[in-house]
Amino acid sequence: MGDVRPDDAVESHATSVLARFLVESRPEDIPAEVRHEAARAILNWTGCAVGGAGHETIDHTLAAFGPFGGPAQASLFGRSERTDALNAALINGISSHLLDFDDTHARAIHPSAPVLPALFAYSEWQAICGRDLVHAFVLGVEAECRVGLSVYPEHHDLGWHITGTAGVFGATAAIGKLIGLTTQQMTWALGIAAAQAAGLQVMFGSMCKSLHAGRAAQNGLSAALLAKQDFTSSERGIEGARGFGEVYSTRFDPSVITEGLGTRYELSLNMYKPYACGLVVHAVIDGCLALREQYGLQPEEIEAIELAVSPRTMELTSNKEPRTGLEGRFSVFHVAAAALIFGAVGEAQFTDASVLDARAVALRRRISTTVDPQLLRTQASVSMRLKDGRAVTHHVEHALGTLGRPMRDADLEAKFFGLTEETLGAEQARSLAGLCWSIETLTDAGALARMAARRA
Amino acid sequence: MGDVRPDDAVESHATSVLARFLVESRPEDIPAEVRHEAARAILNWTGCAVGGAGHETIDHTLAAFGPFGGPAQASLFGRSERTDALNAALINGISSHLLDFDDTHARAIHPSAPVLPALFAYSEWQAICGRDLVHAFVLGVEAECRVGLSVYPEHHDLGWHITGTAGVFGATAAIGKLIGLTTQQMTWALGIAAAQAAGLQVMFGSMCKSLHAGRAAQNGLSAALLAKQDFTSSERGIEGARGFGEVYSTRFDPSVITEGLGTRYELSLNMYKPYACGLVVHAVIDGCLALREQYGLQPEEIEAIELAVSPRTMELTSNKEPRTGLEGRFSVFHVAAAALIFGAVGEAQFTDASVLDARAVALRRRISTTVDPQLLRTQASVSMRLKDGRAVTHHVEHALGTLGRPMRDADLEAKFFGLTEETLGAEQARSLAGLCWSIETLTDAGALARMAARRA
Repeated sequence: MGDVRPDDAVESHATSVLARFLVESRPEDIPAEVRHEAARAILNWTGCAVGGAGHETIDHTLAAFGPFGGPAQASLFGRSERTDALNAALINGISSHLLDFDDTHARAIHPSAPVLPALFAYSEWQAICGRDLVHAFVLGVEAECRVGLSVYPEHHDLGWHITGTAGVFGATAAIGKLIGLTTQQMTWALGIAAAQAAGLQVMFGSMCKSLHAGRAAQNGLSAALLAKQDFTSSERGIEGARGFGEVYSTRFDPSVITEGLGTRYELSLNMYKPYACGLVVHAVIDGCLALREQYGLQPEEIEAIELAVSPRTMELTSNKEPRTGLEGRFSVFHVAAAALIFGAVGEAQFTDASVLDARAVALRRRISTTVDPQLLRTQASVSMRLKDGRAVTHHVEHALGTLGRPMRDADLEAKFFGLTEETLGAEQARSLAGLCWSIETLTDAGALARMAARRA
Repeated sequence: MGDVRPDDAVESHATSVLARFLVESRPEDIPAEVRHEAARAILNWTGCAVGGAGHETIDHTLAAFGPFGGPAQASLFGRSERTDALNAALINGISSHLLDFDDTHARAIHPSAPVLPALFAYSEWQAICGRDLVHAFVLGVEAECRVGLSVYPEHHDLGWHITGTAGVFGATAAIGKLIGLTTQQMTWALGIAAAQAAGLQVMFGSMCKSLHAGRAAQNGLSAALLAKQDFTSSERGIEGARGFGEVYSTRFDPSVITEGLGTRYELSLNMYKPYACGLVVHAVIDGCLALREQYGLQPEEIEAIELAVSPRTMELTSNKEPRTGLEGRFSVFHVAAAALIFGAVGEAQFTDASVLDARAVALRRRISTTVDPQLLRTQASVSMRLKDGRAVTHHVEHALGTLGRPMRDADLEAKFFGLTEETLGAEQARSLAGLCWSIETLTDAGALARMAARRA
């Protein structure tokens, strides 16, 4: 297909190999446990989207783009407005990522936030069944994780926000599958995705972090729709010279994209967060909560706290004096203080008021950190010196929600209700959970999106 | 403003320094010759947008996005459809860049295609006067060129398409000026631009190349509108750790952004193309046309052609056997053959049929190339051995349209009519040219956009 193909190795045309796999995959190829993981991911993502929908980030976005919106084709999760499918993909992408409560692939990306908003927006515009949506979702996650991992970790270390940069490939693949692109069109679609990939870590702590996820969803939907009309792209958008792999990273391994396609599914490695902030601080929270409970600690009893954390943890969350709720999510100091003061790290601990709470400010100043290169980003040790002279410590080997200690279905449902009941009411939230669990049996997947809308 | 500011040097907060300059600039600060250059650029860009509007790339884009379009707020140059301002910015951005006939800053970017589509789309949605549009345009070009040059040439050499990646800052700055952002908001807007910057050279020769310009215009318009609603971003989106400068290049010099703001204007270094393809092959075309005319050459008389070109020329246009019109634009072999066979290199020479023309195919095979590192990308030498034994040669020191041999206003107008008369008719084209030249006197700049629409 491409006009520059040095040899016939699969790696030398990774984009079209991936495209062919996506086009040829059949729903019955997806193992039952992967399909169940899809339902778990849909439940978790839906809760996050509804829970985030009331944030001022969404108000600002709607105010900015409202005058340009098209036909009311799709629901906004957790809100009463409706808008066109492209805008809905953007808005639901932003709302589902802004609490930093959405899922995390075991090695890198937040897989659902770029993909599901595109799928649900599409599902209300053109009726599709739940089984096809699940299939497309599994494939979208497969594409974005493989593309992301082909440049990982160097891509991340350069400062890219991989949920934005790789996420757009996920939305593209998912929608491309749904609308029946040919292999040629899917190859173009993946290239059109590469032409729009963006997202920078400097944005963490600002509203732009979730904009990355929203744009990934919207631009991926766009890419698939353009390719369906034979809008052309490079046929080697990922692996070609001056293509995604070469430009977005110092190392690119195309075999990560092409090897073992269909023999395993990246969605199997999905993880869910019990706390509304980056995975890299979860082990610290687990440790603080464990010590608080074990010793019945009050913050006033604590003289000093020493956190041993992974290098990645300090790299991303070293802000010792956060000033806003958003900044608080990126402060290992704040999450530790919040866990010890409030006994919980949910949305309530990431309001501006909680971050500026005098007890939190005071306790943060008694925290010091050590980077231990031996620790994974999901591990930590928390040690304290108490005012009565005791020294207590707790090591966390597997943060809650990681593959070593996953959240159970019931845990996910409890998290879901915590995120949705206030906005939707208990009854509607229960109906919505039911639709998430039974997604594969729905003849009209759009029913889930409509149930996720707040009744005006 | 920023929470990480190692020192008070201007370079350590380039984003907010640029933002302040943009906010504080007054129309009367812009020298008359720069304002005249703005009118030349607007004339040239308008011609390109009208001329490109009939291309199938636009048909495909409209087919893909039509179902999602909002209110009919803005005109599509060279077409009869109307759409919402965000979509119009995208479409007019694509149509104005797809012929590769738009302007070129002397050192890097194509400055108008990302900026003017956003301004004209906005001008029909909210009435603005021509003087304000020109002022905003000059500032948009200033911002995109400075941001682009701060990472240049390494950014280009890595494989980025700078018209996409830097262009989004131009549209952001221009619209941000027009809608009266505060310095804080403009700082955020430039960050939101960074969060969306994209475009890859692997796409050259496909429809995605012009998509980069369209998305830059649309995303820049979006960034300014979001910032107006206090949508936040990093306050150091360009110069911060893991920000644009660090991530998009191996070298970043923030002083290129901050030094001499307001004392000179990058638009003064703007160049216009006599030929509908990349600047890097123009000197070759000049040389071929000169020899053809001087010796009255017919293609059959030529035994062999030797082109001495710059390294950049070979890097971007080494495709010896193009198969489509788009690929032909990126083939120094095709443009040389077209110049010699047809005596012109306009749109007609970049149809698929012209590229596959048997005489062109045959003549291309008689061309060889040498890279001469001493040559600039706007220089070339053309040598031929004729069948009668003669050897002829022509060296081009300054390609037509470059700063050393600029196109005159009358040349630009002739090019404009060549691009617009077929679509709009001679009378409307003449009216449109008049509005371009008198842009600064218009009380309603949107009148120009409406005059550029094809009457249904």
